[in-house]
Formats: sequence, structure tokens, C-alpha cells
Amino acid sequence: MEDDSNHLVKPETPTTAMEAEVVVHEEEREPESNSLNQPLLKRNRTLSTSPLALVGATVSHIESLDYEINENDLFKHDWRSRSRVEVLQYIFLKWLLAFLVGLLTGLIATVINLAIENIAGYKLLAIVGFIQEERYLSGLAFFTGVNFLLTLSAAVLCVFFAPTAAGPGIPEIKAYLNGVNTPNMFGATTLLVKIVGSIGAVSAGLDLGKEGPLVHIASCIASLLAQGGPDNYRLKWRWLRYFNNDRDRRDIITCGSSSGVCAAFRAPVGGVLFALEEVATWWRSALLWRTFCSTAVVVVVLRAFIEICNSGKCGLFGTGGLIIFDVSDVKVSYHAMDLIPVIIIGIIGGLLGSLYNHVLHKVLRLYNLINQKGKLHKLLLALGVSLFTSVCQYCLPFLAQCRPCDPSFPETCPTNDRAGNFKQFNCPAGHYNDLATLLLTTNDDAVRNIFSSNTSSEFHHTSILIFFVLYCILGLITFGIAVPSGLFLPIILMGSGYGRLLGMLMGSHTNLDQGLYAVLGAASLMSGSMRMTVSLCVIFLELTNNLLLLPITMIVLLIAKTVGDSFNPSIYEIILELKGLPFLDANPEPWMQNLTVGELVMPSHQ
Amino acid sequence: MEDDSNHLVKPETPTTAMEAEVVVHEEEREPESNSLNQPLLKRNRTLSTSPLALVGATVSHIESLDYEINENDLFKHDWRSRSRVEVLQYIFLKWLLAFLVGLLTGLIATVINLAIENIAGYKLLAIVGFIQEERYLSGLAFFTGVNFLLTLSAAVLCVFFAPTAAGPGIPEIKAYLNGVNTPNMFGATTLLVKIVGSIGAVSAGLDLGKEGPLVHIASCIASLLAQGGPDNYRLKWRWLRYFNNDRDRRDIITCGSSSGVCAAFRAPVGGVLFALEEVATWWRSALLWRTFCSTAVVVVVLRAFIEICNSGKCGLFGTGGLIIFDVSDVKVSYHAMDLIPVIIIGIIGGLLGSLYNHVLHKVLRLYNLINQKGKLHKLLLALGVSLFTSVCQYCLPFLAQCRPCDPSFPETCPTNDRAGNFKQFNCPAGHYNDLATLLLTTNDDAVRNIFSSNTSSEFHHTSILIFFVLYCILGLITFGIAVPSGLFLPIILMGSGYGRLLGMLMGSHTNLDQGLYAVLGAASLMSGSMRMTVSLCVIFLELTNNLLLLPITMIVLLIAKTVGDSFNPSIYEIILELKGLPFLDANPEPWMQNLTVGELVMPSHQ
Repeated sequence: MEDDSNHLVKPETPTTAMEAEVVVHEEEREPESNSLNQPLLKRNRTLSTSPLALVGATVSHIESLDYEINENDLFKHDWRSRSRVEVLQYIFLKWLLAFLVGLLTGLIATVINLAIENIAGYKLLAIVGFIQEERYLSGLAFFTGVNFLLTLSAAVLCVFFAPTAAGPGIPEIKAYLNGVNTPNMFGATTLLVKIVGSIGAVSAGLDLGKEGPLVHIASCIASLLAQGGPDNYRLKWRWLRYFNNDRDRRDIITCGSSSGVCAAFRAPVGGVLFALEEVATWWRSALLWRTFCSTAVVVVVLRAFIEICNSGKCGLFGTGGLIIFDVSDVKVSYHAMDLIPVIIIGIIGGLLGSLYNHVLHKVLRLYNLINQKGKLHKLLLALGVSLFTSVCQYCLPFLAQCRPCDPSFPETCPTNDRAGNFKQFNCPAGHYNDLATLLLTTNDDAVRNIFSSNTSSEFHHTSILIFFVLYCILGLITFGIAVPSGLFLPIILMGSGYGRLLGMLMGSHTNLDQGLYAVLGAASLMSGSMRMTVSLCVIFLELTNNLLLLPITMIVLLIAKTVGDSFNPSIYEIILELKGLPFLDANPEPWMQNLTVGELVMPSHQ
Repeated sequence: MEDDSNHLVKPETPTTAMEAEVVVHEEEREPESNSLNQPLLKRNRTLSTSPLALVGATVSHIESLDYEINENDLFKHDWRSRSRVEVLQYIFLKWLLAFLVGLLTGLIATVINLAIENIAGYKLLAIVGFIQEERYLSGLAFFTGVNFLLTLSAAVLCVFFAPTAAGPGIPEIKAYLNGVNTPNMFGATTLLVKIVGSIGAVSAGLDLGKEGPLVHIASCIASLLAQGGPDNYRLKWRWLRYFNNDRDRRDIITCGSSSGVCAAFRAPVGGVLFALEEVATWWRSALLWRTFCSTAVVVVVLRAFIEICNSGKCGLFGTGGLIIFDVSDVKVSYHAMDLIPVIIIGIIGGLLGSLYNHVLHKVLRLYNLINQKGKLHKLLLALGVSLFTSVCQYCLPFLAQCRPCDPSFPETCPTNDRAGNFKQFNCPAGHYNDLATLLLTTNDDAVRNIFSSNTSSEFHHTSILIFFVLYCILGLITFGIAVPSGLFLPIILMGSGYGRLLGMLMGSHTNLDQGLYAVLGAASLMSGSMRMTVSLCVIFLELTNNLLLLPITMIVLLIAKTVGDSFNPSIYEIILELKGLPFLDANPEPWMQNLTVGELVMPSHQ
């Protein structure tokens, strides 16, 4: 009976964490709350300190939000007394906010991209210089040192100024849209730390992405715009009083989260669907249109800046187009027999995804224990991970054998540029180091290289295996450290490694390109870990621009989700539970169906 | 306050048609209704014959459906008494049904496509024969005669066997998913008549598409599967008793409607979004996954048949791929200045779309008067429209001047095939007739030709103007006749004509290709008339396979919807109102906010 109840029946049965300490400090958040606009009855003001709340949950300070506008007499009086002009003001302002959220998200995403590409780019160019002069140890010292400093700056910001900026932020947004607010989650400090910290952490070459943080950044922008500025310096614009209620703010934050996904993957439709499928609990049809408007603005802004950067005014920012991992040039031709490897990819992806969720859960519990010991421990953990990552990324390529260039790629092989598919690294002329191609580059370029098609003999299988194992370890140990980190890219990196490996094992038994195996592997692991289907499908479509891949992507996603669901919940639900954020599921647990109120209030039953 | 209420508050305020005669014949529909599974309290069993129901509304026989499973003791007892095996049976069966809906929809869509392409193809080849022998009048007689017979067969079936099969069926599905069932809408007779009638009507060259009917066909399949077969010959499978409730059946019909859109446009994600945005009123997150599964099956089936047909085993069925109107070869490059024509397209599209809705409303009211006079009148109306269409399509190309072939298309110009972009028709060798290219072909090929890119000098502007005006007239007079007819293709035809015309007027002031103008024109008119955004955007993306077009498509759709919404409701809402189907909007009208029960029951207030 997996879906016998629905959003309309939202049982208020207490979950473990629901009984956690609920601190209501509404007044701090909305100092000028207008009594006419705030006839809001908070749902849970009761405090209880049941010991249950401590089992497996780090209790956070949370506050609950209203879902419905409470249609009492006070509200109705205010509503009816609004003139036609005021109603138009409200509608206009709501659209203006959706527009501004898109505009600012697009601008900030561009700034972040520019900063990362330039910092990481100059770092990698310097490394190329050291390698060419065969000063390998100096190169290692420089690489590790720069990454150490970048990680340090990101971690210091997160640890001392805005602890809520660490991690992806998506689980907290999911909780907010489900009705639970974490204080300081959407403040101006968090926004600034998240932007700068994300630039530092991603440029440091850590195994994390800017995608999750971008979603959080966009949500912060949305929240700040809706309340008229940061807590201490708010705009006193009278119009903004209309947004002094939970529902309108929730709508705008939903716009923000979809704008963030759109800016991260340049996927406007995927962004809307992500908000619909994964983030927002209560979805209203009016939101579809509004989020769509925000993401349209984001993509137009991104597009404009890409146009400007193509003329070379953005330093090392690439000359790529709107599509991040373009595989549209692959001729997809497959037959009924190719469904078998596709099904295998899906099944293994589901298994690996749920295994990843399981192990990450254990690692995060361990990290929680370390992080609780104090700020210094948090810093040391982050720096340790950074050192390990840098040393592995720099030293492992020396294990790989140099491979001769294929004469069919005369211009791109070998390259000494910061990006490129055939990096020379320590090899003689006419040869390239396939592991350096994958490791000594930005994460985005690594994905691009491993997705590259019509290059079936580019990588040796041991190189791909080393890459896969390394990113499995990094994907597990990096996520919990105190820097802004997204989960999308680590999972894509792991998944693409596993997919390409599988493609190599299939050898001549398949018509599909190895690059497509990498794409499908990434999709299957994402679905196996995050359990999204439609939004992921559209995001992958918009990432890779290959419509003919759609039917097989759909099959892979469905199978991986089904397999994963039979083992454990999605990674976001695991993180929510770890953070002690109460999340009301759409469907009550089966055992709740037969509960009576009497049984609930009797503590002996717990 | 356009969205101050939401799906959770569904006010039971009576609308005009809600007070219409509500005939409850639940027992006819579910003869073996199991009392344990049917503890369903029908919402509206009250009959009232308020004269209001007759104002502007053709009162249908309708019955209301349950939304929630009524959790009374009887239901709970049944639910709790189900063993684990029975629960697994239920889940398995629900997925099996989603799979079967997709499979059968894919198969039937393939059959329909094959039949239409072959019938229309041989007809057009015969015409080419007549033209080459310069037997123009015989050609006219043959063309008109064949179209007449095809229309006659479709109309006779619809008029005498299944009147509910006429029209697109989408409004009725929308009403069903909103809680109102029209009897005989999802029966076996309707299904058969719809399939055969749709083949006849589309092959007859009428200005209608198979898209709407396919949605209805898929919903019929879903409904029949869920109830175990047609009314008189049902499967007695015990498992099917689980689906003897309105909610499960509604879920399966939602799967059906998205499978239908998927089969029509080969757009799996677009299909899911269409059901989400346009059709289903109450959307549950579990549905997203299930509809996605159905559309994945549809697209795999379609893909398999296209693979088979590519080897030439399907008669005249083309050798095209999965993408219907592929414009992926167009290099989209645009600058800030190109936003101006894009905005203009959106505005004009919105204006034209709402104008089309307005005039179509008037025409449909007139047609209702004619159709009410009897079956013969219905037949004559359909046949009259068929004659007019055939004569225009055959005779108008003689008005166009022959144009010399561009030497850059040596192989495709001129052609005497049934399809092709440069039809020779009555022209001497080395020349082509541009109007014949657009008119004397199937609707699908006409769209393909007008979308064709890098052919800026192919069409003379008077030809496009004639095409546009003709399809405006046909689009208005064809829709209401008694054959299965879809609205998508007529609007795409009109819109592409207007878009291409606008592109020609812009001349050298724009960087965009004329084919892209046609695509954007079609999108804007669709949005201006049907008022969908996200689903339409994805459908256009999947139809045209050009991701770089996405940002401008989004802008066009948003502007056209905004402009259209300020004039009148969407075309589906207009048809719903005309059919007298009560539709509960998500948001109550502003005047309803202040109503009291007392005011409602007093007839003097009406």
C-alpha cells in the first residue's frame, strides 16, 4: 500500500524528532511582524524533552511553519479590506520577486563559475609548469599547499562565521518546504560564506560540487529578497508586508531552489522538476508557472554571460556553450539486445547507490562525533581530507603508464593545457597520461573527459579502476567536512567511473559507446542514491543534449530507483534524519494506521 | 490574489453546471461492486433542475466521483484484514497495469501511424499520377472523393455508434480527473470508434491531428484494463476487485493520458508533465513515478517499431527517427537584440491564441445548434467541411507561381514523391510549387516542411499567407464536426504559418532562421490558446530536439500565456463549459470568498 494516503491527508502523528525541543523564536526572525498580516497560529509550540529525540538524532533548534493561511476573522478582515490596487501590488511584487531571484541567481552563479575556473585553472597551469621542468616534488608541494590554503579559507569561514553554510543545504531546504525552519539557514552571512566557501572548496579540488551550494545560495537570495534584506538592515518598503507570511515566503524559496538547480546544471526544466519532485512537499499548480519564470530568467542570464565569455573576456573561463557535458555528437543506435546491459547498469547502480547511502550514513555519524568535539577538530578534519585528496590526485597519475597518442587526434593529443582529454603530464612527446587526464583537472573537466565518446581506447581499465576506487573513498570522506559541498558531482564522478568500467568489460558485446556507458552509470548511481526519476531524467537530458538517449536513461533511472528503494531511504532523507530535522512524509507508516490518540499519549507504548 | 487558495482547500461552492442534472448510474458501471470495497459515499446525489444550468451549457449526463477513499469502519476493516500477500498483489497489479497501459498505447499508436501514413501516402501518390498526366479534374474528383469517403466512414462511426468519440476527448478526461464522469466515455465501443475514426479523419486530410484522440484512446485502454474489460465481457479476476474504487481508477487513467501524449509526440517527459500541468487536478507524488514508467514503456515500444520500419517493412511509413520535427541541425545563435522579435512573437501569439479561443467558442455554439438537429445534420456538416478542405487543398496550389529550384538542393528539388520539401506538382522540370509543398501533403509533413531551416527563399510570402489564412479558417470550422479530432496539430499549423510569415517580415533584421520563427510561432499560439508552459516547453523540446532553443521557447511561452490569460480562459476550459461539464477550479472565484451558506440556498440570489 505504498501510496494509499496522499498529501491531502497529512497526519500530525509525532515522529521521533518531532518531539525534539522546538524553540520558537519567531519574533527574532520577523521583528516588524504586522499583526494584521500575522494571524498565524504556530502549529507546534509545545516543548517536550522525550529521550527518544536523542536516539540517533542530533537535535537541532528548529521552528515549525504554517502551511495554510489561517482563515480566521482577522485575516479575512485584512483580505477583504485590501483594495484592488493593493491586490495588484501583491501580484506584481510576487512576479517581480520571482524575476529578481532568477536574475541574481544567474549573476552569482556566473561569478562563482568565473572564480572557480580561474583559480583552479591558474593552479593547474602552474602545476604543468612544474611538471615540464621535472620538479615533481615542488609541484606536489605547490599543489598540496594551494589546495590546503583554499580549503582552510573555506573551512574557517564555515566553522567560525556560518556553521549552517557547511554541507549542501538541500536537506534543510527540503525541511523548510516541509514546514520546519532551521534558524540562520537563509541569512546574509550564510549566503556570503556559502558563496566564498563554495569557490574555495571547489577550487581546492575537493571531491564536491558547486551544485548543492548553488541551490542553497539561490534559496538564501529568495528568502532575503522576500523579507526585504538581511535581519538588521531591512528595507522598510510597505509592499513587503504582504510577504510576511509563511506561505508566500515558501513559494519564493521554492522559486529559489529551482533557480539554483537551473544555474548549477543550466537545466531550466530540470530545475522546475527538481523542486517539484524532490524539494517541495506541498506543490501548487501556480508554483509551476512561477518557478518556470525564474529558471527562464536564470538561463537567459547564463546564456548572455557565456556569449560574452566566448569572446575571451573572462580569463580562463572556457569557451563552452550552454550545455555542460555535451554528448550530442554520439550516434545512438541500439537494438533489443542492448537492453540487457542497460538493465544491468540500472541494477548495479541501484545496489551501489544504496550501498553508498548506507556507508555514507555510518561515516557521517562518525564525523558528527568528531565535529562535536570543537571547532579545531572540524578544521583539522577538513584539512586532513584536503591533504589526502591533493596527494592522491597528484601522485596516483605517476602509477599510470604513458600511452601513445592516437593519430586520429592530432591536435588534441597530447596537451599541456589545464583541461583537455589527453594530458601529457610526465610523459614523453606523443604520449599522454590517462590517469592525469582524469585526476589532475577540475571535477567538471574530469566528468567531461570520462563522458567523451568515440574514444574507446583512450583509458586503460586499471586507470578507470583507480579513478573509481579513489572517488568512492573521496565521495565518502569528503561530504561531511565543514565546507559547502554538493552531492551531485561526487556521485556523477563515481557513477561515470563505474559505468565506463562496465562498458569496457562488455567490450565488443555491445553497440553502445563507452562514453554513453559512463553517462548511464552516472545516471544510475544518482537515481540509486537520490531516488529521483523525472527531474533527473530531464537534468541529464539538458546536461548531455542527447534526446535519443532518453528512453534508455528512463529505464536505467526506474530500475535503479526500484532497486535502491528496497534497501534504504534516499540520501537526503538519511541526512535529514541525521540532522534531527523532523520530516513529515506524505504517507504515514503502516503501523500508524491503527494508532489511537490514547496509545500515542501513553509513554509506555514508546 | 491569483493563488491565495490551493488544492488543499477545495471549496464545494456550487458552480453553474454543478447544479446540472446529476444522474447517478454507478450500478450500471460497476455491476459487481463489492460492498467491502465500495464504501463510497457519492458526493452529489442531489438532483436540481435550476434553469441556470441551461444558460450557455449543454447539460450532459454526468456522475460525480469520489476523491478520497472514505475511511469509514467498513473500509478500515477491509484494509486491515488484507494479508501481506494481498497488499503485494495490489502493488504488483498497479505496476502491471501501468506497464500494460504503456505497452498497448505504444502498439495502438504504431498501428494508427502505419494506417494513416499508408492510406494518405497512396492517396497522394495517386494524385501525383493524375497531375503528371495533366488530368487535373480527374485528380480533383479522385482527391475529393477519397477524402469524402474517409470522412464519411469516420463520421458515420462517430454519429451512430459512439457520439462520445467525436472531438479530442481531452476535456472529458480533464473533467474525469477533476471528479466528474461522463458515461460511455471510456468504453470499448468508444475506443474502437476512436481508433478507426481517427485513422479515417486524419487520412482524409482534414485539419485535425491524431494527438488529442491518442490521449483519449490511451485513457480508454487504461480504464478498460482497470475494470477488467468492456462492460459486458469482463474478466472475473479476483485481483481486479482492488481497483473497484474511484481513486485507483483515476490514477490509472492519469497514466493513460500521459502515455497518450507520449505516443502522440514521442515525448515521454512531455507526456508526464502534460498530465501534471493540464489534465490531472489532484496530483500525488506517487503518480509521477508511475506515469513516468508508462511513458518509458510507450517510447521503448515506439522506438522498437521505428527500428523495424526503418528496414522498409511498413509500406509507406517513413524512415524517420524518434524525433518528429527535427530541427537540431539549426545553429542557434542569437544576441540581445534578437530578444525583441522573440517578445513580439510571444505577444502576437498570445493575442492570436485568445482570439482563436474566442472565435472557436462562437463557432462551436453555432455547431451545437446544427448538431442538435439530428444525426443527418451532423453527417452533412462533417462532409461539407471535408469537401471544402479537399477543394481548397487541391485547387489553391494552382494559384501559386512555379519557382525555380535552388541548385544547392539537387537531389530533393523537385520531387514527385508523396512527401518532400519541393513538390513539382504542376510545374515544369526544375521548378517546384511551394504551396503544393504545404497543402498537398499530410499535416505532419506540412509542419515538417514549414519548420525546415536554412531554406529562407523556399516559400513566397503570398504562399505562406494563403496557407495561414486557409488554416485559420479550417482550424475554426473543422474542430466541432463529428469525427475524432485533436487541437494540437491545427494550432501548430496555424502558428507555424504565422511565425514563418513574421520571420519573412523581419527579413535581414534578425539572426534567427525562418524555420525557428515557425517553431516559435507554433509554440506561442499553442501557449496562447492552451495556456500550458512547462509541459509545452518540454514537448517542443522533444519534438524539435534543439536544446539551445529552450531559453527563447520559454520566454515565448511565458509571454503568450500571460497575454492570453488577460483575455479569456484556455481552450479546454471553454470546451468544458460548452459541454456543460462542471469543473472545480483550484481557486475559488473572488466573489465566492464572501458567500455564506445562507446566500447560496436562497434562489433569489441567483
